[in-house]
Amino acid sequence: MTRVVLLTDFGTADGYAAAVAAVIASAAPEALVEHATHDIPPGDILAAAFTLARYAGLYPEGTVHLAVVDPGVGTQRREVAAAVDGRFFVGPDNGLFTRVLHGASRARIVALERVPADAAPTFHGRDVFGPAAARLARGEALDSLGSPVTDPVLLPIPDPVPFPGGSRGEVVQVDRFGTLITNVPGSCLDDAGGRGEVRVSGRSVGPVRRTYGDVAEGALIALVGSLGLLEVSVRDGSAADRLGVTRGAPVEIRF
Amino acid sequence: MTRVVLLTDFGTADGYAAAVAAVIASAAPEALVEHATHDIPPGDILAAAFTLARYAGLYPEGTVHLAVVDPGVGTQRREVAAAVDGRFFVGPDNGLFTRVLHGASRARIVALERVPADAAPTFHGRDVFGPAAARLARGEALDSLGSPVTDPVLLPIPDPVPFPGGSRGEVVQVDRFGTLITNVPGSCLDDAGGRGEVRVSGRSVGPVRRTYGDVAEGALIALVGSLGLLEVSVRDGSAADRLGVTRGAPVEIRF
Amino acid sequence: MTRVVLLTDFGTADGYAAAVAAVIASAAPEALVEHATHDIPPGDILAAAFTLARYAGLYPEGTVHLAVVDPGVGTQRREVAAAVDGRFFVGPDNGLFTRVLHGASRARIVALERVPADAAPTFHGRDVFGPAAARLARGEALDSLGSPVTDPVLLPIPDPVPFPGGSRGEVVQVDRFGTLITNVPGSCLDDAGGRGEVRVSGRSVGPVRRTYGDVAEGALIALVGSLGLLEVSVRDGSAADRLGVTRGAPVEIRF
Repeated sequence: MTRVVLLTDFGTADGYAAAVAAVIASAAPEALVEHATHDIPPGDILAAAFTLARYAGLYPEGTVHLAVVDPGVGTQRREVAAAVDGRFFVGPDNGLFTRVLHGASRARIVALERVPADAAPTFHGRDVFGPAAARLARGEALDSLGSPVTDPVLLPIPDPVPFPGGSRGEVVQVDRFGTLITNVPGSCLDDAGGRGEVRVSGRSVGPVRRTYGDVAEGALIALVGSLGLLEVSVRDGSAADRLGVTRGAPVEIRF
Repeated sequence: MTRVVLLTDFGTADGYAAAVAAVIASAAPEALVEHATHDIPPGDILAAAFTLARYAGLYPEGTVHLAVVDPGVGTQRREVAAAVDGRFFVGPDNGLFTRVLHGASRARIVALERVPADAAPTFHGRDVFGPAAARLARGEALDSLGSPVTDPVLLPIPDPVPFPGGSRGEVVQVDRFGTLITNVPGSCLDDAGGRGEVRVSGRSVGPVRRTYGDVAEGALIALVGSLGLLEVSVRDGSAADRLGVTRGAPVEIRF
Repeated sequence: MTRVVLLTDFGTADGYAAAVAAVIASAAPEALVEHATHDIPPGDILAAAFTLARYAGLYPEGTVHLAVVDPGVGTQRREVAAAVDGRFFVGPDNGLFTRVLHGASRARIVALERVPADAAPTFHGRDVFGPAAARLARGEALDSLGSPVTDPVLLPIPDPVPFPGGSRGEVVQVDRFGTLITNVPGSCLDDAGGRGEVRVSGRSVGPVRRTYGDVAEGALIALVGSLGLLEVSVRDGSAADRLGVTRGAPVEIRF
């Protein structure tokens, strides 16, 4: 049972997401269409790139991930399909797959060639990407969809900058709970015995802890989150609200 | 694998949508329940009628579409099921199926007759429409569900009004991206070589273009959208915000 | 076809919900993952308890319900799995299952024992509950997951208090339509011939009616809702807005 998993910024109320699901159901009737999310903020490719990387590799090998956050639809950007560590990906070549490609063991990318002549220039999800995903779900080879691409668009996601005794990074995502997810890998704490003092926008949030139970309710806490990245939360609250910060806020860790 | 595809204004947080899905899963265990949307604005039958038409016909023949936006539940409105161009539809007879019926080649409609005596008067989605959809998904004949109806309720969706050298219509839907979808069919441009100058609420939005790439980022653009209707957008922005208009705003095209 | 049905407060935009679905798809590939809701207000265990009870028992026997609203993740609360009247439940032991257990005929609960050592302390949905749900979906026995628990955490949901000629209760949930759902069972009206006069926060909303059609559009109405509980609505409107009340508001019925 092959799954086609959708991520878009379409919302569901207008029926665009259902149109994509319908096209796949018609073209690959044996595939199972699943909805990861349609709630990516409109046009926010960076948010989509992080969200996609949070679940894509957890699906079984052979799963087809269709990702459409596509403010450039109808412009010159390419349409691509990729095979990354056993899963397939289909979508616009605009950086959506940056985090999935980051650190992949094996990746092969092609530019879609058989874009239908009558594809609506405003809805490639339905007319281009959905049909391509269905072909992969039916077992067609990636190479049959187009010619190799070696220069996919990648978002310039910043790396943390080490300094003597510490590292400087930033908030790269704020989740629904107001947790600040940073670009600082938890592994940078290994040499420091897992310890370090964390500041966000110059304000101390204390040492790195292991779990929410280590602080009182309502307290700020820094820990290594489920993505393996340094996170800052408020236990049973929102760190984004408490600290008044958003994506891009500077984060500093001192060992 | 027969699909039952749900559209409601229930949201998901209260569990009403899941209750409908559960009833179908129990009554037709081999059917696949899919969620098109539960985010129709509460009671907005017109929005639902447009959304449903955007995807219903793209699903494979035999698909059962369950649509429940039902501010009249518990009043005298009829419950109906229909077969339209190979797909089935179940829901209240309140105009929800106006756009699906519009331009259909074949349509047969019945009024549901076996409404259970203990159906909750406030939740026909669970107690009436869900079970009826399950019966269709199990292969029961439409005619076994009730007696023919020839006068379904249809919403008075306005047609554009031609005038010498142009046509006057209105905005019929505003989507998540702030795109204004009008009732002016793209085909009205055929005699004009696809050209025309568009105004919304008296303000010019320029000529009809082919695709977003034809204007700069942030610019207004009129084009024929993925439904075959004239649309007005802002590239990478919201036309609804830019122009300060909503459903019902007047649209004029001059050739 | 065993179903695993998810309820969380994760939203979908961050990819946490999809990560849970992915883990189940990998560990129990033949199971069907369904999404009841991810829109429970963050941390609102009481709302989740009512929502879950609205649909859980309508699914076929053998269905696995995974419920994760878990503000205590990473603290000392237990992880549990339960078999209640033929369906399975997995989640934190924090009261989520209060309404499902309330009035159940048969219930068996175990505390999960094989929590993986490398489980992220902030994401038990992915690392603990998802895998446990997958094991149940594959047919493993409940008892193989842990040792019996006889004192599950139960939320102190108030019972209505009878007084001579009436009963006093409160609003326990406000749904998307602004309907006030109370803790007063419709059965308390049986001796009064289904009649009674209802007040919310001291304001009369009239007698108990049968259906929305019994009052004019825009009018307040009290009736026994689809859960068998007394509800207060505005026909085609919001009782919560009209009366300016929320969860906890006092409700009184006089026979």
